[in-house]
Amino acid sequence: MGKGMVLGTMIHGAGERRTDWRHPAIPSDASTSFDFYKKQALISERGKLDFVFVADAMYITPQSAPHYLNRFEPLTILSALAAVTSNIGLVATLSSTYSEPYAAARQLASLDMLSGGRAGWNAVTSGLGGTALNFGHRRDMHPEHGIRYRMAAEFTEVVRKLWDSWEDDAFIRDKDSGVFFDPKKMHEAEHDGEFFSVKGALNIARSPQGQPVIFQAGKSEDGRRFATDTAEVVFAIDGEIGAAREYYMDMKKRAARTGRNPDELLVIQGISPVVADTEEEAFRIREELTATVSLEEALADLGRHFDHHDFTQYEPDAPFPDLDGLGANGFRSDIERIIKGARRDGLTLREAAMREAAPKTPFIGTPEHVAGRLEEWYRTGAADGFMLIANLPSLLESFVEGVVPLLRERGLFREVYEGTTLRDHLGLPFRENRYARAGEAILV
Amino acid sequence: MGKGMVLGTMIHGAGERRTDWRHPAIPSDASTSFDFYKKQALISERGKLDFVFVADAMYITPQSAPHYLNRFEPLTILSALAAVTSNIGLVATLSSTYSEPYAAARQLASLDMLSGGRAGWNAVTSGLGGTALNFGHRRDMHPEHGIRYRMAAEFTEVVRKLWDSWEDDAFIRDKDSGVFFDPKKMHEAEHDGEFFSVKGALNIARSPQGQPVIFQAGKSEDGRRFATDTAEVVFAIDGEIGAAREYYMDMKKRAARTGRNPDELLVIQGISPVVADTEEEAFRIREELTATVSLEEALADLGRHFDHHDFTQYEPDAPFPDLDGLGANGFRSDIERIIKGARRDGLTLREAAMREAAPKTPFIGTPEHVAGRLEEWYRTGAADGFMLIANLPSLLESFVEGVVPLLRERGLFREVYEGTTLRDHLGLPFRENRYARAGEAILV
Repeated sequence: MGKGMVLGTMIHGAGERRTDWRHPAIPSDASTSFDFYKKQALISERGKLDFVFVADAMYITPQSAPHYLNRFEPLTILSALAAVTSNIGLVATLSSTYSEPYAAARQLASLDMLSGGRAGWNAVTSGLGGTALNFGHRRDMHPEHGIRYRMAAEFTEVVRKLWDSWEDDAFIRDKDSGVFFDPKKMHEAEHDGEFFSVKGALNIARSPQGQPVIFQAGKSEDGRRFATDTAEVVFAIDGEIGAAREYYMDMKKRAARTGRNPDELLVIQGISPVVADTEEEAFRIREELTATVSLEEALADLGRHFDHHDFTQYEPDAPFPDLDGLGANGFRSDIERIIKGARRDGLTLREAAMREAAPKTPFIGTPEHVAGRLEEWYRTGAADGFMLIANLPSLLESFVEGVVPLLRERGLFREVYEGTTLRDHLGLPFRENRYARAGEAILV
Repeated sequence: MGKGMVLGTMIHGAGERRTDWRHPAIPSDASTSFDFYKKQALISERGKLDFVFVADAMYITPQSAPHYLNRFEPLTILSALAAVTSNIGLVATLSSTYSEPYAAARQLASLDMLSGGRAGWNAVTSGLGGTALNFGHRRDMHPEHGIRYRMAAEFTEVVRKLWDSWEDDAFIRDKDSGVFFDPKKMHEAEHDGEFFSVKGALNIARSPQGQPVIFQAGKSEDGRRFATDTAEVVFAIDGEIGAAREYYMDMKKRAARTGRNPDELLVIQGISPVVADTEEEAFRIREELTATVSLEEALADLGRHFDHHDFTQYEPDAPFPDLDGLGANGFRSDIERIIKGARRDGLTLREAAMREAAPKTPFIGTPEHVAGRLEEWYRTGAADGFMLIANLPSLLESFVEGVVPLLRERGLFREVYEGTTLRDHLGLPFRENRYARAGEAILV
């Protein structure tokens, strides 16, 4: 908690909910509008937020929600945003199941270098089985959940080795003597593992923050283990303070058990704040955002969590169907949450689908009210900070202009950027090069 | 030739030659300096040039020249440049041997979208066998030259299918009716070939230019066949007008033989112009650029063409060694040119290596002289245009300020950008969506 509350913005184009794009204040082509992404990033930077974040997936069907059908790829759009911002962190989602570690390490390092040390990597394992079809495999060859996380652990290990290919003082660049670099400070990866083998050195140096910051959002047992072993920022969307505290406590405990400093594993919550001058106005805005969801659309969105399962085959007003383990190789934690909630509250399929479609947020009301809730979550062990999912530009603006100043008054958030890198903003330590450390150890 | 001369800039950081970085006017960290890349792009855009271009490779050894050891990845740096430029084309090198078509199609399309239709793709097959080591393979599993080009042809076919996933009017985005897109205008790739299989639709639409422009530089028989079947701009570095005319004629003939309009296959030459107020000054500048190359460095650079062959094992003052097919799986056309030149002119190894190290250019002298040579090449069938390899910022500036206005006076080059896309600049047609064409054909 040394650096105060973490605040980032997920820029999510025309929105996660199927009907967000119809809102009068969202450009209907927001998901491929550079101007939209730039505007959201500049509002966030004006608020001195820690980072902007771009989510990702690599499989669509005609039933996918509008934003998924047609959107920017994260590394390209974030590189473009690097050029028009100067301080804010830039977090790119990239799959460890369907990428090559050398190419991934390189693009993330290149974003990190060109932004002066502002890159982060949200490591995902690709929950959609259909992704396999786009990457040369049969659908049933999509690796099983546990294997995906084993791949992710090894992938991340290789990427970090590659990021340490060059010690920080490897490049001497002395024009007079003609010495460009010190070959003793170049290190080849020499990795030969279960899933990946990489022998060479990366052809790009480390940035001012040493390595990009690794983000992770796995909530299953496999996901939590991977996150506590590897990530520096973990996030979840729990929606209520009790579940958030449970998650927070669990992740911090796991970090301590693996011998890490729990302060160096930041736990944040994705939230959808709705801020307005009055409580009534805030609720009216939320109403507007869900007015047009049909049952058909709600069922399609529900199906996506279950790896595109077709829910129209069931009677909508009968109890939530028994799915018998179906989709367990998809977004497992979402599936468990949905089924558990439906059983507990005795919901019909229609009720479960519409509940999932409605934006659930305790962060709704006046700036004072929302700032108070954030402080409560932050001070009582529910989160080290928040990722704002506020694709309505006016909602991001009202948060930055209404809530952020109140957080400052309460001593919870920075007045100015005190450092230049994403690690500086987050209060995470510079990541030492493993070989430099090894060298020093020998000298001691 | 309808649109006049093509002019682009290769931005190449601290330079291809091993000692360029020592020049007083080049920042020694140019290869990872966003400011350097931005400045070169803005000079080029001020001159109304067609494009900037970023080369690439994915394997280094401690013997690699400085620029190769530590440089930006093309798609990330070009996305950043997209945000700070408004007209100039952006051409990214990407390997068809060590990438996935879905990921490649997507990043190139994303760059194309965020730049408003300014992207190009330089398709390469990765000449360095060591690349295999960084991508999970044994070195001897680097695919053989002919196979790499077969892969390239199929890779490009899949990428283009994916780029046509959405017809240009597929996205309706009518907020009132709630119709976001027309499912009949979404097309899955359904590709199942020798090397690649991709089933899905790309999750990004086409840009205002339809598809990115494909560049290619293969000079071997395989390379030329691939280029004439697939590319829209081909380039070579022939260094003298006779060889350039042969290449030009050959490529145009091949295009015609495959049934293409030869005007839609632009043939350009990479050149290193050295422009100064006087001829003496120009020659002095060139002298400065090579003053410090040692034999050892020249041999290492020579070796890179031969897939990192170690030339220090030979007597430098004996005749150029008989290599017996060695390195033929690398950059084959370079190898043939070097060996042929050494045999023809009876060179020793030292002479061949130093010849390769020296910047060879007939485009040296006053602006009038260089403009005259360019006009000669352009008007007598040696090239449709030129890619400037001028990493000394002052050389790019003196070309843009001295030579470009003279080309305008001669009616050879544009005064202003007349269109907004890279295709507009190059005079290449908008690339129709294959499915839209098919639909129209049925109506006729």
